[in-house]
Amino acid sequence: MQASELRFAPPSADKSALEEGRLFTPRFDANGLITAVVTDAGDGTLLMVAHMNAEALAKTLETGIAHYWSRSRSSLWKKGETSGNLQHVESISTDCDQDAVLLKVRVGGEGATCHTGRRSCFYRNVKVEDGRPILTENG
Amino acid sequence: MQASELRFAPPSADKSALEEGRLFTPRFDANGLITAVVTDAGDGTLLMVAHMNAEALAKTLETGIAHYWSRSRSSLWKKGETSGNLQHVESISTDCDQDAVLLKVRVGGEGATCHTGRRSCFYRNVKVEDGRPILTENG
Repeated sequence: MQASELRFAPPSADKSALEEGRLFTPRFDANGLITAVVTDAGDGTLLMVAHMNAEALAKTLETGIAHYWSRSRSSLWKKGETSGNLQHVESISTDCDQDAVLLKVRVGGEGATCHTGRRSCFYRNVKVEDGRPILTENG
Repeated sequence: MQASELRFAPPSADKSALEEGRLFTPRFDANGLITAVVTDAGDGTLLMVAHMNAEALAKTLETGIAHYWSRSRSSLWKKGETSGNLQHVESISTDCDQDAVLLKVRVGGEGATCHTGRRSCFYRNVKVEDGRPILTENG
């Protein structure tokens, strides 16, 4: 895999530059990561929440295929590389303080995003029952 | 504000209990936080990404009004308490490894979620132009 050529400038200390400026200067956290929210570009369903370091973010912008940072494996993760369920990125947006990104994607292969085989990782609702927080399948 | 009575059991070390079990055992990170993705219950628009500690999550489940942990102010944050744009929670779901939640909400008041006055915090798209990552307003 080729190294990315895209570089991100450090975030401005000026809040208005961060919120209204034209330069994308992602605010990586102490671990060098930002949060990535991933939705289906077709119907808007939330598919997963993951994390990106600068390399993953640059690769995603350069290739149009979603890359993440796997915190469990401590490695760059081209989602779907083995399963074939690659995520083709239709748009990337960022929030007011530039510490999160939204990826709208079309999932290739058989369309599963969750490693459990489900379309979305968010397959259970939380409710309080008899004073305990319990889960029920929502799909 | 009354203290919450809802308590969360520690996450199971058993992956299948975490992924397929019936008990909600949120996996708070080293800072005691989980990621909260907030969408409009009506049309699914991503409104914001925030963080919750156990207290914020319990308050949200108990009251049906979204509470977060403000990392900048280091305090519990009842979103919209001063602006009137309270978030009324229609459903909460969690992901496979229980380290993120999705809140589907209806926003009260004049409906703004972002502190900049916009409906959503995700108001700018990221693109690469002449080798630089730049932002353009999307709404």
